Amino acid sequence: MIDFKINETSKEIIPALLHKINYKTKPIGSLGILEKLAVQIGRIQNTLSPELKSPAILVFAGDHGIADEGVSICPQEITYQMVFNFLNGGAGINVFTKQHDIDIKVIDCGVKYDFEPHPGLINAKINYGTKNFLLEPAMTKDECLNAIAKGAEIVREIHRNGCNIIGFGEMGIANTSSASIILSLLCDIPIEKCIGPGAGLDDKGVSLKKEILKKAVNKHSIDKSPFSVLQTFGGFEINMMTGAMLQAAERGMILMIDGFITSSAYLAASKICPAILDYGIFCHKSKEPGHILMAEHLKAEPILDLELRLGEGTGAAIAYPIIKSAVVFINEMASFESAKVTYSY
Amino acid sequence: MIDFKINETSKEIIPALLHKINYKTKPIGSLGILEKLAVQIGRIQNTLSPELKSPAILVFAGDHGIADEGVSICPQEITYQMVFNFLNGGAGINVFTKQHDIDIKVIDCGVKYDFEPHPGLINAKINYGTKNFLLEPAMTKDECLNAIAKGAEIVREIHRNGCNIIGFGEMGIANTSSASIILSLLCDIPIEKCIGPGAGLDDKGVSLKKEILKKAVNKHSIDKSPFSVLQTFGGFEINMMTGAMLQAAERGMILMIDGFITSSAYLAASKICPAILDYGIFCHKSKEPGHILMAEHLKAEPILDLELRLGEGTGAAIAYPIIKSAVVFINEMASFESAKVTYSY
Repeated sequence: MIDFKINETSKEIIPALLHKINYKTKPIGSLGILEKLAVQIGRIQNTLSPELKSPAILVFAGDHGIADEGVSICPQEITYQMVFNFLNGGAGINVFTKQHDIDIKVIDCGVKYDFEPHPGLINAKINYGTKNFLLEPAMTKDECLNAIAKGAEIVREIHRNGCNIIGFGEMGIANTSSASIILSLLCDIPIEKCIGPGAGLDDKGVSLKKEILKKAVNKHSIDKSPFSVLQTFGGFEINMMTGAMLQAAERGMILMIDGFITSSAYLAASKICPAILDYGIFCHKSKEPGHILMAEHLKAEPILDLELRLGEGTGAAIAYPIIKSAVVFINEMASFESAKVTYSY
Repeated sequence: MIDFKINETSKEIIPALLHKINYKTKPIGSLGILEKLAVQIGRIQNTLSPELKSPAILVFAGDHGIADEGVSICPQEITYQMVFNFLNGGAGINVFTKQHDIDIKVIDCGVKYDFEPHPGLINAKINYGTKNFLLEPAMTKDECLNAIAKGAEIVREIHRNGCNIIGFGEMGIANTSSASIILSLLCDIPIEKCIGPGAGLDDKGVSLKKEILKKAVNKHSIDKSPFSVLQTFGGFEINMMTGAMLQAAERGMILMIDGFITSSAYLAASKICPAILDYGIFCHKSKEPGHILMAEHLKAEPILDLELRLGEGTGAAIAYPIIKSAVVFINEMASFESAKVTYSY
């Protein structure tokens, strides 16, 4: 069931992309990271005239049993309350996607609450929150695989509707705990280095979180395959994102990677299928310390460094116009020849 | 004639702004630099519901006598050729302002070329390029004051038309040489540290530039007042920007500061009237080494770090949607109360 065929992006087109970029009316290299983005997107779409079509951001929501241990400053009911906030248009991700005309979909991957049907909500509930992984694996193997498959299915539908650039966001109280362990196990980094304040723990809270997560990691003797890690320590929203990302890359879409949690799903996806790394754009550098380690491990250069740590996909939404600027300049700027500018600039 | 009355922005409103921001449905502080921008803009406009109206970017163009010494990789005719490119819509600044629906005005401050009248071009020519400041002052005192006054006049007109956020960009072959000396003299930093590759000099070129600019600085024994520095080493476009910025701050507009050259004008403006620093937003961190020193001196935190070094105001145009995101979130996000989210997030 879990079988994604992701092609590496075109190497052959690089010289032609660089030629087009270097003959734009500007000093060579002077658009910095925008030029790198233009090359990446041109390679993904295998064209000198890339396009961004029907951008969408998916917000994956799920609850976490580990919240019982007090690893978050927030009570668990914030997860479902924030889902209502997403559906009512009042959250950060709503106002930023509206600003940039990005479609938003909210996905109930496993929130501990029964929602009424709503046009903005995709019901993909695997269970009512994960189990507390201090005591037992977060989910069964079937639940883990179902979440990945469901994420892929959702993306296929969105791709069919014409979207070629997709952002990933999440909501789930205590999900930085999952992300920290995924980082630690998949990148072989001591767990203490992977843990931060999340939504706002103080030093004492962070110490407690470290203690609990260390115990949790020691409790389960698992192989360190991405599937085992996702099953034992993941979340329904994280695992569904992993499936969604793999599917999106298989379909040749551009992936906008948000903050720490989203990057943990992307990290897991990259261990399942490394070619996905050609498709992802790290949208911002989160304030959460583990995120910086993740970006380093994946050799990613985040576009923005705005000290964001909200999640929801807000970093992706805020970075979207910058990604669009890369496409705009390669398509619309004049060349030295067309502008009759002496070529030597 | 040169007399600007810039008010410090409201301190009284800060607690109310912070209260509004902290009760938005998000962890405290989790929108990072966007929150700081919202406070700055709220203070400038003295309101809890700030607005960005009729954004405009002015591109100031001028030629530089010092170009005769080979301090730039580019021949001087690139300046007027790029002005044509601006007027024809083919330059970087054109495509980025179009992307974000920002009005663009091009100003001939002192290009060594006679342009025909054009609806997109403001004729404010002070002279046909500055003099070579290795041999004599770049301009007369009258020319310097006229440039500052002219910049102010242009901004008054734009403000009258409803604009309350204005970006500054420039074009002028060899103008990094002026900017480097302005930085060195106004911030008391050794000139060698203020010099970089500009549009693309190699190491040998940078060495030559250092030698020439050092000689130039030693030639003129001037007081280090901003006016003397601007007259002796400035440019018509730099000095006109200085006047434009001072006027914009006096009118309570938000100033979008672009890269190295624009920042040199802002630095000079801040030495004339320090209260201007409440109004400026450093849009990006340029690759030009002097720009980082400038940002440090002004305690500015640039919004973007995209390795841009194009000028023209492109960094301001690309950063504009981020500034807008700050205004969007403070106005449109739900509060804990309105969204019925348990207050403790």
